[in-house]
Order: sequence, then C-alpha cells, then structure tokens
Amino acid sequence: MRKRYYPYEEYKQDLKTLINKIDKSFDTILGIARGGLSMAQMLGEYYALREVYAINTIGYENTQKKEHVEVFNVPDLKSSQTVLVVDDIVDSGDTLVEVLAILRKKYPHITFLTASIFYKSTACIKPTWYVKEPKGWIEFFWSEDLKL
Amino acid sequence: MRKRYYPYEEYKQDLKTLINKIDKSFDTILGIARGGLSMAQMLGEYYALREVYAINTIGYENTQKKEHVEVFNVPDLKSSQTVLVVDDIVDSGDTLVEVLAILRKKYPHITFLTASIFYKSTACIKPTWYVKEPKGWIEFFWSEDLKL
Repeated sequence: MRKRYYPYEEYKQDLKTLINKIDKSFDTILGIARGGLSMAQMLGEYYALREVYAINTIGYENTQKKEHVEVFNVPDLKSSQTVLVVDDIVDSGDTLVEVLAILRKKYPHITFLTASIFYKSTACIKPTWYVKEPKGWIEFFWSEDLKL
Repeated sequence: MRKRYYPYEEYKQDLKTLINKIDKSFDTILGIARGGLSMAQMLGEYYALREVYAINTIGYENTQKKEHVEVFNVPDLKSSQTVLVVDDIVDSGDTLVEVLAILRKKYPHITFLTASIFYKSTACIKPTWYVKEPKGWIEFFWSEDLKL
C-alpha cells in the first residue's frame, strides 16, 4: 500500500480546517488514546476548555475477523452536557462505535459529537466533522518523528 | 516577563533528548492533561506502548497563596508495574507532587518515574528526567498554532 508521511504542519492546517467546520458548542473534549490525545490537547487549548479527558481502547480480532473493541478508563463525565469525542482517524469505525456505545450507556443525558482528521468512507460510522479521506497508509508525524 | 514561542521542531528535538536521557524501563505512560497529552502520545508511539493514559488536575489558589491541586480521572493501573508520568513543564511542582501522592496512595506496588520537557529549579520536586530550564514565559506551539 502507498505510504505517505503526514507532517505536523499539515496537521496544524487540518486542525484549523476542522475548527472552521465545527458549528456546535461543547463543554468537554474526550480524546481516544493514543491517536486522539494531541488533538484533544490542542483543541482544548483553542476552545479554552480544561475539561480535556482521555479514553482507552484495545482491539481484538476475533474468529469472524470482525474486530472486538474493549473500552476502558472511561472518565467521569457527570458534569458534562455536550462532549466532543476526537480521534486522528476513523478507519473501520469499530473503535468509535464501541466508544460511543459505552459512553451513551453510562451517560444517557450527554450529547456526544465526534471529530476526526481522517475518515474512510467505508467506515461503519461517519464523524460529525472530519477533514479529509486518507489515500493509502498514513505515517503520522507523531509515530515517525522520534525515530532515530 | 519575556515571552518566547516554543515551536514543534524544538519540541521534537527535546523529546529526542529526553529519550536519550531515559535509562529505565516502564510499561505505562501517564500524561498529565492537558500539557502532557501529546508527550504521552508521542512517547507511547516511540516505546511501542499502548498503555498510554491520562490524568486530570485542577489547581485552586487558597488564602495562603499555596496552590491546592485536585486530581481526578485516575486511570486503572492494576496491571502496571512501572509508570512514567509525563508533563510539559514542572513549574511550581505542586501538580506533580499531588499527582504522585494520589497515585502512590492508590497504587503502592507501582514504581513511578517522572519526565518533563521543562523544569524550573525553584520547583518543589525534580522530575526523574527533564530536558531544560525555561527562560521567561513559554508560548507552547500547541497553545499558539491554532490561533487565527
């Protein structure tokens, strides 16, 4: 598969594009680890929100080849009304679907919005806002830039 | 106070310097939100650890001018043995001291190591590893780069 490096400068521009698309307000940002963490941090700075939390997932391939996603470290959202869930990429969509299922079950009073930089149109869920579709395999700067 | 912009390129180099200093192993990375989140993400990628978690704090100034720090969203560390706690800057040190106190009380079996990019020598705690002392007020790229 074609690989392409995704540099910080492009990420910065894409986050600005995302911000321009976001037309609803929220009081909390929840980053899906690891890929959504720096997004959560930078959007938290932009929107001046200190309610910037993380959530963890592990994906397991089961025998039916469908990924089973386990969600853990669900943050305390008792004081939140509208939460923006962020991740770098919505690929199959399995992770985001399962994260939303767990969150909505635990916090039925909360409105969950979703945002990603990349979104594959073959995914089983479309984020509320996204920036672009990936072409080939993306080598994100946060994975590549510390390699020696 | 003198302000100086801290760009991504310098952060990348500083993280490489930090990695060169880190001479102990760990199985979990815990980023103090918001400042430690992208560090946790990038170090998690570098060390190929999926155990990348976040923790939250709120600082209150009380009447004695000493900051009181409240710690919340403590992640589940039952399976961890050695945890690297990361933050962008150790300034007064109050946040890191309180985070470690809460973590050590809840998880007495865990060894906690600490790392930051910046460390002020006047802080009440010195991280296990750090990169440099700040001169003046730092305008981090993650706070500045999305401003219009």
